[in-house]
Amino acid sequence: MAVETFEPAQARPVPQAGLMMDFPLTVHHVLRRMQTIHGASKVVTLVDPETGAVTEREFRDVVARAGRLAHALERLGVRPGDRVASLAWNNAQHLEVYLAVMCMGAVLHTMNLRLHGDQLAYTVEHAGDGVVIVESSLGGQLAEVLPQLPGVRHVVVIAEPGEECPELPDALDLEALLAQESSHFPWPEIDERSAAALCYTSGTTGDPKGVMYSHRSIVLHALAMAGADVYGITSRDRVLALVPLFHAMGWGLPFVCGLVGSDIVMPGRHLKPAPLARLIEAQRTTWSAGVPTLWLDLLHHLDSLPQGETPDLSSLQTILCGGTAVPETLVREYDSRFGAEMIEGWGMTEIFPGATVERADPDDSAVETGARRRSAGRISPLYELRLVGDEGTVLPHDGVAVGNVEVRGPSVASGYYRAPAATAAAVHDGWLRTGDVGTIDGSGHLRITDRAKDVIKSGGEWISSQDLEGELIAHPAVREAAVIGVADPRWGERPLAFVVLAAPVTETELKEFLSSRVARWWVPEHFRIVEQIARTTTGKYDKKILRSLVDDDQG
Amino acid sequence: MAVETFEPAQARPVPQAGLMMDFPLTVHHVLRRMQTIHGASKVVTLVDPETGAVTEREFRDVVARAGRLAHALERLGVRPGDRVASLAWNNAQHLEVYLAVMCMGAVLHTMNLRLHGDQLAYTVEHAGDGVVIVESSLGGQLAEVLPQLPGVRHVVVIAEPGEECPELPDALDLEALLAQESSHFPWPEIDERSAAALCYTSGTTGDPKGVMYSHRSIVLHALAMAGADVYGITSRDRVLALVPLFHAMGWGLPFVCGLVGSDIVMPGRHLKPAPLARLIEAQRTTWSAGVPTLWLDLLHHLDSLPQGETPDLSSLQTILCGGTAVPETLVREYDSRFGAEMIEGWGMTEIFPGATVERADPDDSAVETGARRRSAGRISPLYELRLVGDEGTVLPHDGVAVGNVEVRGPSVASGYYRAPAATAAAVHDGWLRTGDVGTIDGSGHLRITDRAKDVIKSGGEWISSQDLEGELIAHPAVREAAVIGVADPRWGERPLAFVVLAAPVTETELKEFLSSRVARWWVPEHFRIVEQIARTTTGKYDKKILRSLVDDDQG
Repeated sequence: MAVETFEPAQARPVPQAGLMMDFPLTVHHVLRRMQTIHGASKVVTLVDPETGAVTEREFRDVVARAGRLAHALERLGVRPGDRVASLAWNNAQHLEVYLAVMCMGAVLHTMNLRLHGDQLAYTVEHAGDGVVIVESSLGGQLAEVLPQLPGVRHVVVIAEPGEECPELPDALDLEALLAQESSHFPWPEIDERSAAALCYTSGTTGDPKGVMYSHRSIVLHALAMAGADVYGITSRDRVLALVPLFHAMGWGLPFVCGLVGSDIVMPGRHLKPAPLARLIEAQRTTWSAGVPTLWLDLLHHLDSLPQGETPDLSSLQTILCGGTAVPETLVREYDSRFGAEMIEGWGMTEIFPGATVERADPDDSAVETGARRRSAGRISPLYELRLVGDEGTVLPHDGVAVGNVEVRGPSVASGYYRAPAATAAAVHDGWLRTGDVGTIDGSGHLRITDRAKDVIKSGGEWISSQDLEGELIAHPAVREAAVIGVADPRWGERPLAFVVLAAPVTETELKEFLSSRVARWWVPEHFRIVEQIARTTTGKYDKKILRSLVDDDQG
Repeated sequence: MAVETFEPAQARPVPQAGLMMDFPLTVHHVLRRMQTIHGASKVVTLVDPETGAVTEREFRDVVARAGRLAHALERLGVRPGDRVASLAWNNAQHLEVYLAVMCMGAVLHTMNLRLHGDQLAYTVEHAGDGVVIVESSLGGQLAEVLPQLPGVRHVVVIAEPGEECPELPDALDLEALLAQESSHFPWPEIDERSAAALCYTSGTTGDPKGVMYSHRSIVLHALAMAGADVYGITSRDRVLALVPLFHAMGWGLPFVCGLVGSDIVMPGRHLKPAPLARLIEAQRTTWSAGVPTLWLDLLHHLDSLPQGETPDLSSLQTILCGGTAVPETLVREYDSRFGAEMIEGWGMTEIFPGATVERADPDDSAVETGARRRSAGRISPLYELRLVGDEGTVLPHDGVAVGNVEVRGPSVASGYYRAPAATAAAVHDGWLRTGDVGTIDGSGHLRITDRAKDVIKSGGEWISSQDLEGELIAHPAVREAAVIGVADPRWGERPLAFVVLAAPVTETELKEFLSSRVARWWVPEHFRIVEQIARTTTGKYDKKILRSLVDDDQG
């Protein structure tokens, strides 16, 4: 049967009438679900770590208070497009600030309270924040930098009843503001591409850089994460929101929980293991997320308690880890002790968290699961990844080729706020350079081997510092391990391992241990046994400091 | 602390640079996931119902064949915006047609093979289809109407090897077309609001009306449905796609499965209970969806088999039902026999399926679950519903107020294709009238009590025909029941029940049974015991025919 080639068909235009509704993807949709369908779901905030006292508020009350707050902010002169800053830990009030500011059309700058004063002040001025909403316990921190912030017209203090904030005598009181306002705010209709929030990355070099999230990116991220294969959170979950709300929108949890109606348990500023363990036991939380260090500390705390006094953490079903590689031993401990599935995800401020994530296969044993989890997860819906070699060539996804990880998608930043040079450096041919180096296999599993700047190049080949760290920590005598590259006249660079010990062990023993697990030429010649390893504000090893220690020694 | 009111802040504009990527929500994203991350997932098609023989194809091969098909269609003159029709059951080739047509920027009109000839021809001419791709077994049906279709320039036949289509001697053979093309098609970048597919509703009155799905609406629907609380499909599922691909995009399953990477098992045209039962057993399918009648027929088939010859259907975990209310007995049977959770959803061509749906609570017993499922499910993410009284007032969501259900969202039609009058009648103040009547409770559970046109108004109050049907079918002697309103001089209308019996029972017994379950004034005075009840092409009771039977008697 022959096929003829025809001229292009007479164009028969498709009228636009009869298409789908032009319904915007804005945080308002989440707000309306919290107000109606999920009105009875709860936000629980820990207020007293000693007694375990909490405040409880239904979603519908959170939305009502957000309405009052929007009125109050409008009265303070805040208009659509204006920037409002928050400086707070995780509590119901901070969630109300989220909803009020974003849904009134303003932009929420979640200040990273772990930044140094000058950097913090820089971000407020760079964002152009006119109003700062601060938690009373952080009033001192704000008061210190306030003289550097001429653009800030108002400070509003979040305080529990009876709580004072002597450091900010001229500030407005949140509850007093809310008391005089109506809970019915006429939320404006806004374009889904409008800015909703601004979050500064705490880079180790240069000024912090701002990532401006649109409403669309937030809603799409929440939708993708609600997937059964991704966060997998349901309306029956009780989510312990440990990730600070100032870190990449608290990993998007407020929006996922608002969308699906799970309860949210907020730890306030009480992130120490003892109150957390009691909170998990008391609130029967089922799902949580946080950096591995936090879960490691929690285990050590439990081990330190007298037998019979261990809190019951068996309600935990899923723990999402991210920010840095998760030691396999940690996965096993949480599985065997509590039946909790610890899953790994990958992301960053610029791309939200969960760009890769994978829930464990319930048919897998913990060991297989652990092995599979040597990846940082599988590429999530709405994210696309590629690997690029140093020469700019796109590399295959075969689980072997190592390259610079680039990403694109509707929840990926197209650059930095008011930072053209940083933007130009970050964007490559429509993709965002993540600064991570790794492999991707044929099924979309990402394996991060290094930060690009931490890669160790030895004899022309790459050694993965993260792999070495993972193998070292598998040794029972090693509690923490960080590996950096140091200059070597023969090989260019050689790995050097900083190790925190849990029990006595010799360098020789460590080398022999590693020799059985990695290529011989990967094994470091030198180890430094230290009391602790410096970390960045986001809990990652601060390799810049480690490198400076070596430079100091050699200098 | 006094609050001053300030003038609007000096507008400090937010630059658009530094926002998120403008990444389009198009079917191409699903296609790329099928090609890469989920390349090894499978489409299985039943080809021989006697032997159970199937064909298997990996997602990556489906995409490769879609690329060939796009080249072939381009060679046949198809250009972006052009309409291409398919007339086929569920098989891998139909899925390839989906991907090829939509991703090349053309529009797929999925012809409803259950329409009568004249109506079918009407839809093809109304859509302006230039090419029709038809399954060989349906060649006769197309040949009958082809003389009425001057706009159709080409007919392409889907056939298994060796299969002939004598009714269409001049048609092109799909496999021959594919054989000469490259699998690499340069898929164009298209706007997410572009038309992707066209589906005609088989209304009982007037001409069929076309719903034009955009790429954006399809991707957003798939994302929302992938939610753990919604379809809840994971990459480990094997999805039995019973819903015809010409019914509201097969309830969106091809896109959900493509996005999450679950296997898809296609029954071809073999929807009889015996081959289906064998297919479920052989393929160990875990998730399925379809109208309740189909699941009822499957049960009756199993009951008719000799003991020991019953296929093992225990792989079934989740069955999504929709299209009409699900009898509680059916839910119980699937739970107790196979441990399968039967969940109910609600939707229509204009709004996709799954606008409401609710997965059962694993902690609920089957009975509680059944009671909860007296609702059609809970409002899904990206859908908003409201109830409007006959006078146009918006009614409360209290589970009591009965009103006309209206819906809005990004996957809801804003009207009908080239049908301004029907569009004007359907849209109300930015919401779509669904033609369904029901209640919504404070947690977003929708309960459909009737189609607006089937409502029975008796003594000024509404009687729900669907409720009466549900209660009647709970009687062990009743197999099917359909209730309509008939004119009554005193009350305006009174209910009349058509009943198909499974065992002997008297009218008096049925009345007594109902009296204990509904308000006395709801109990019908009259019953008609019949051999079968007429159904529409989508499996719903055809109440228009039932009403005409009564009119004939009275005329």
